[in-house]
Parts: sequence; C-alpha cells; structure tokens
Amino acid sequence: MSESDRERRFDHLFATTVRERLDDAGYAGGASPPAPDAVPLTYGFPYPESFPVAALRDAVETVLDEEAADVLQYGGGEYVERLNDGILAHEAVNGVDATRDELLVTNGATHALDAIGATFLDPGDEVLVESPSFVWSLAVLDNHGAELTGVDLDENGLDPDALEELLERREAAGQPVPKLLYTIPSFQNPTGATLTRERRERVLELAQQYDFLVVADDAYGELRFEGESPPPLAALDDSGRVIRLGTVSKTIAPGVRTGWIVAHEALIEQIGHMAAGGTNTFTQSVLGRYFDAGHYEPTLEGLLEGYETRRDAMIDALERHLPPGSSWTEPKGGFFLWVTLPEGVDAEEMLPLAAEEGVTYLPGERFYVDDGGRQGAADLGDDGVGTRSLRISFSHVSPEELEEGVAALARATEAYLE
Amino acid sequence: MSESDRERRFDHLFATTVRERLDDAGYAGGASPPAPDAVPLTYGFPYPESFPVAALRDAVETVLDEEAADVLQYGGGEYVERLNDGILAHEAVNGVDATRDELLVTNGATHALDAIGATFLDPGDEVLVESPSFVWSLAVLDNHGAELTGVDLDENGLDPDALEELLERREAAGQPVPKLLYTIPSFQNPTGATLTRERRERVLELAQQYDFLVVADDAYGELRFEGESPPPLAALDDSGRVIRLGTVSKTIAPGVRTGWIVAHEALIEQIGHMAAGGTNTFTQSVLGRYFDAGHYEPTLEGLLEGYETRRDAMIDALERHLPPGSSWTEPKGGFFLWVTLPEGVDAEEMLPLAAEEGVTYLPGERFYVDDGGRQGAADLGDDGVGTRSLRISFSHVSPEELEEGVAALARATEAYLE
Repeated sequence: MSESDRERRFDHLFATTVRERLDDAGYAGGASPPAPDAVPLTYGFPYPESFPVAALRDAVETVLDEEAADVLQYGGGEYVERLNDGILAHEAVNGVDATRDELLVTNGATHALDAIGATFLDPGDEVLVESPSFVWSLAVLDNHGAELTGVDLDENGLDPDALEELLERREAAGQPVPKLLYTIPSFQNPTGATLTRERRERVLELAQQYDFLVVADDAYGELRFEGESPPPLAALDDSGRVIRLGTVSKTIAPGVRTGWIVAHEALIEQIGHMAAGGTNTFTQSVLGRYFDAGHYEPTLEGLLEGYETRRDAMIDALERHLPPGSSWTEPKGGFFLWVTLPEGVDAEEMLPLAAEEGVTYLPGERFYVDDGGRQGAADLGDDGVGTRSLRISFSHVSPEELEEGVAALARATEAYLE
Repeated sequence: MSESDRERRFDHLFATTVRERLDDAGYAGGASPPAPDAVPLTYGFPYPESFPVAALRDAVETVLDEEAADVLQYGGGEYVERLNDGILAHEAVNGVDATRDELLVTNGATHALDAIGATFLDPGDEVLVESPSFVWSLAVLDNHGAELTGVDLDENGLDPDALEELLERREAAGQPVPKLLYTIPSFQNPTGATLTRERRERVLELAQQYDFLVVADDAYGELRFEGESPPPLAALDDSGRVIRLGTVSKTIAPGVRTGWIVAHEALIEQIGHMAAGGTNTFTQSVLGRYFDAGHYEPTLEGLLEGYETRRDAMIDALERHLPPGSSWTEPKGGFFLWVTLPEGVDAEEMLPLAAEEGVTYLPGERFYVDDGGRQGAADLGDDGVGTRSLRISFSHVSPEELEEGVAALARATEAYLE
C-alpha cells in the first residue's frame, strides 16, 4: 500500500508508539530494488546446503513415532524437555552455566528481544545500542517506544570509553541512564566485529556501576572458524545483569524459528509472563530429538568449514576487485562483512545502480539510529553515519556467486564515482 | 520460586505494567492442585486421538522432498503461500471474504492477541471483555496495561443491552470509551455460549456508534456439531472494525502453534509491524501442504463426531450425578461447559477436595475481571462473581473418563455441602 493510499480512519485507535510511526518507514531495513538476477549479498541467510534436512526428517519421524500425542498437544512432552536440556548442555560448553529456571525457549531470538522489550521498556526509556547495529533489532526496540542511543564500535566491538563517556555525560546532565544495553558481542551484525575479553569486562563493570542490564545477542558466537573466542558476557558476569539470547537460526535453520533466553531467574520469570502465546511444541520436540541424537555439534563443524570458505572467497574478491580507498572488516566467524567504499560514494543512492550491475547489499546508513548521542563510526573508516558503508553477507550464496557479486559491486562503485 | 524468595534487586528496571504485577498472580488461570490420578477436566486440550498424525507426517515428507531449502529458510517458499491461500479459502467457506493484504499468519491466536495489544493499547486504555472470559486472553491484555471491564453474557452470548448501557454511562460521565471489545462469539471460553446473529449485528452497530474495534476470537466457531451457526462478526461487518482471530490449535493440533488475523489492511499493516519475530516457516509449510492436500475439511468432520460424543457423555453424566440446585450450559459445539453448583459452594475452595475425589476443573472466579463495570453473571445462574461456577472441558478425555470426572465432581460437591 502506498503511503498516500493508507487508510487513515483508524489511526486514532492505534497505540502511541504506532501512531508516532505512521508515515515513517522507521527501521525497515530490508527494502531493496527488485533485482532477481543480481547476486543477493543483502540478507543474513544461511546457505541452503547447510540445512540438516535428513537429520530433521529423522527427528520428525522419531518424535511422531514415540510421542505424537504429546508433541502435538499444548505443552509438549519429553522431547521438549530434552530441548531444554540440550540447550543448557550446549550453553555449558560455551562457558555459560545455567539452570532450568534461568532458561526460556522462545519463537526465535527476535521474539525473545520483543519479550525483553515488553518486560523492561516503558515508552521513552533509554536503550543503548551499538552504532551501527542490527536494523531489525532496532525496529523491535523501537516498537516498544525505546529512545535508542548509539555507542561507537570498532573492529574490537563496542568502545567502552565511548560508553563510559556517554554514561558520565548523562549522569552529569541529570539525564536518565539507560535500562538496557543491546549488544551483539561476537561477529556483530552488521560489522562482523567481536568484543574483546577486556572490553567485555569493562562493559559489565559499567553495567554494575550505572545500573543497567546487558542484552547480549549471541546469534553468531558459535560460528567462529578461526582463532579463540572470548568468553560470553554471561560467563564473565556474576551480577545477574546479562540477558543472553541464543538461536538455532544460524546453526540449524531459520525456518524452525527457535531461540532462547538465559538470564537470572527473577528476570526469566517476568519475561516468561510477557512472552505470551506459548511456543511451537512440534518444532521444539523435533529440535529436542535433534539435540538428543547428537546432531548439533557435528553439523556445526560442517558449517564452520562452509562459512570459512565463503568468507575467504569474499575477502579474496574484495582484494582483487574493489577500487583504492575501499576497506572492509575481516571477521573470523559469523555472516557479515562491513565494507567502506571510497570517499564520494553514497551507498544508499548507489544501490539501484549496483542492482543493475548484478549485486544487492544493505546500505550502512540503515543500521544507524537517528540520535544525538552517537559519536560516529569514525573508527570503521566512515564519516560517522554510514553513508559510504554497506553490509554484505558471505553466508548465503556460493563462493562463485560471492566473487561475481563483489565484482559487480566494484563495477557499480567505479561507475558511480565517474 | 515462592513469592517471598523473589529476587527484588532488579524490580526497578521492569516496565510499569510488570512492576504493577509483581507479587500479584494476576490472571494466572492455570494453577491447580497436583492430582495425577484425577480426571483432568481443567484444560481446553483436544483429545489426543484427534491429532492427524499420519497426514502431518506425510506433509513433512512432501515439503522436505519438494522444497527443503525454502521450508527451512527465512520467509519460506511455495507452501507458506499455500497456507495463506488455504486459510483464505477456508475463511471464505466461513463467510469471511478477505484478500492476502487482510491476512496475517501468527504463532497462534494468543500471539495474535498479543500483537493486537501492542498495536492498539497504551497502558490504561479501556478494553471490554465478556464476563466471564478466557483467563489467558485477559492475562495477555493485562500485559499491555489494559483496563479491563466485563460485560454481562448469558447463553446467547454478550448482552448488547448491558454493553450499550455501559457505553452510555461512560459517555455521560465523560469517561473514555474503550478502544477494543474482546469477544469469543461462538462456543465461548469459558461458558460455551454463542452470540446470536441479532446480537452480533447490535454489537457491530455499537462499535460503529462508539468508535471501537471488535476483536472476535473465533477459536471454536468451526467446531459446531449441531444446529446452524450465525455468520462470523467479520462477515456481518462492512465498517472494517472487526479483527478476526483464527487458529488451527483446535482443528489440527495446538503443538503446531499457528493462528491468524483477518482484518482491514490498514490494521493488518500495523499489527504486522508489531508482531515481531517472524513465523515458523517449517511448520507453516507443513500446514500449507496439509491444506493443499485436502486434509482440513475431512479431519474437521471427524472431530465434530468426537466432540459431540464427548459433550453428550458429559451432559448425560451431569444429569445423572449432580445434586439438585446445579445447572449447566449445553453448547452445540466447542470444548467447554459452564457449571453452576448449588448455593453454598465455593468452587475455588472446593478444588482440593474435588482433586482428592478424582477430578480437576477451573473455578469460575478466575475468568472474571476485577472491575466495577461488571454487572454480574446473574443470567448464568451465579451470584455475579463466579463463586459457585466452574469451567469443565469435554474436549480432552474419553467419554468414560468424562463420566468418572463428573461423578467425582458430584461427590465433592455433596461432601463440601455436608
């Protein structure tokens, strides 16, 4: 529906946060010119061959054979419990020790973030986010009326000096401190940056000092194919201030739409109240069997190889094709690279041209919040609002297509700058 | 976690609606004494033999064979579209003509109601509900800070005279009119009452006159095994004021956790923004195949027989066992009966005794909102707050167990009154 057509007769019945967003696209990150023949570097989709189809099919068979009457009923049966056990066991491998009362399984990590928003945020509450950050998470927080303020990040993740300065400035000015900091600590979306251990510890100190909670969205943490991971924020925290989000969207499949929250049980209790609507016990049972049958870890190992090959292909192509003055991050895991093109490029404006040349991406500007607190992403080589930047995903297409896509990006850049 | 143990150090960080609910059980309808040997007449569960296991298993096979890479990816593929088509075709059979832009598939009807709450309700907004109404829907509306006011209902559903009087009184007193009326028009939960056609038309006139929206939760409408159904509210409405909720939880299985909203596209657009987190494309694809393969209608026919047999068994048992002074509704579909026991019974207080005798149920009081607007459910034979009443479900257990459960209810009542 075009904006001018929009039916207005019910506008006065919407909630305030919805009314404020009418006629404003808000954080709608996905719009892209239709370009069916272009290589889609736009989305954080797993590559299709990564899906463990046979294992999922077997799991469906088993759970329907063994406990169909529970699998299909409200609440589920034994295999739902095994999913809980599987997640907890896996989190323990990640260094996060949690009990059943500290876990809530959700309909994906975004549903988890939505429930967290409902639990903690009154309209107008302050939330800090990385600048740039994942646009759909910004949209969810915006749905709850949050005032979003960006905090600088560089290749080592969120800058704790910038965070501390912002908090000090707020405190000195008598402004409210944030309730939440939303961070994607590992292989950040959109930049691929990973927060160092030292910085994680400083973020936790600041959370304690300034009395806020840290929502750590660890969608990509397990997808490290090179080097050593710093411990998850939840593993470093002893104050109960970390709310950890996990998901199987990147390690099993997005279509099974299952995520979880690990947090202090006093928080889980209230988030559980607000995460209305129950969960899909059919899917949860299938995943419970999947964990129980030992598929998770071996599948993950195969993924690491697939993603490393793709990242290497993309970096190789970037090195060979992009014009001087371009730079990019080189993550050791995850799905995304953050590219900064030469001065003079406006990545949003260039997108239709790029689509014609044969590639689509997400312009960097879309990942920034519109606020005064942000210091600019100078450390990522841009001018501070992402104009020259873009996110490309190496997760989705084949190495050959990655090469084609990057070549098209280079052609578009050169044509644009002519 | 017991109330006194509850960790309080994070309480100040919760949203206002959550803080207000701390230490208050709120609309937590489900608590029941542990009674593993008692016949559970408590929950609105379908009977386990009703689940179309073989058809779902086939559907899984087909969608994984034909389009696994889409089924498991963000967004899904062809079968997700076929689910949309199947729902729309089925709604047309119900008399509700809607387009793709007027449909939103959700993670169940409760998720749908939650998204509606997020879209329309600011804390403190007025919402009218039937008195009594489904306790978990009350809980979801309460999560959004709604002020709930009950409107009387009798065996013919919501009383439009009571509704009109309430609206007039509010208007005269300069009080805000409600934004939403939440109704379960057919085989209402908890009473089994069905709103007559004439009353449906009057409710719609009042919605137009007083400028509110009608959320019509039609979870049970298709489960009529006797008589003729009045048209759905959405089929009678030409003002765009009806938001219709559907679900496959009662007609396929709760475990697949899929529902939908049919409403004016201007409303669907905003509800879609607020229904954050995406949907389960794996499950949706399986259900798309299930509809596409023609399983829906024949399965439904089998269910009608199963539920009619159970209702008959329950009514027969009530007639034979319950002491004089008892009464009950006799719905021609759905899952529930509303029983009013003789004067002197407190159904909440009697529950542990009933559990000992061998039956559990949901006390009537739990379905009432705590407000001044409610006129009392005098027409249902109670004293107005549901003390003597209870909801029992004939959907879940076998006819033999229904008989046992009702006999235990009669024994408990007689023992209680001694």
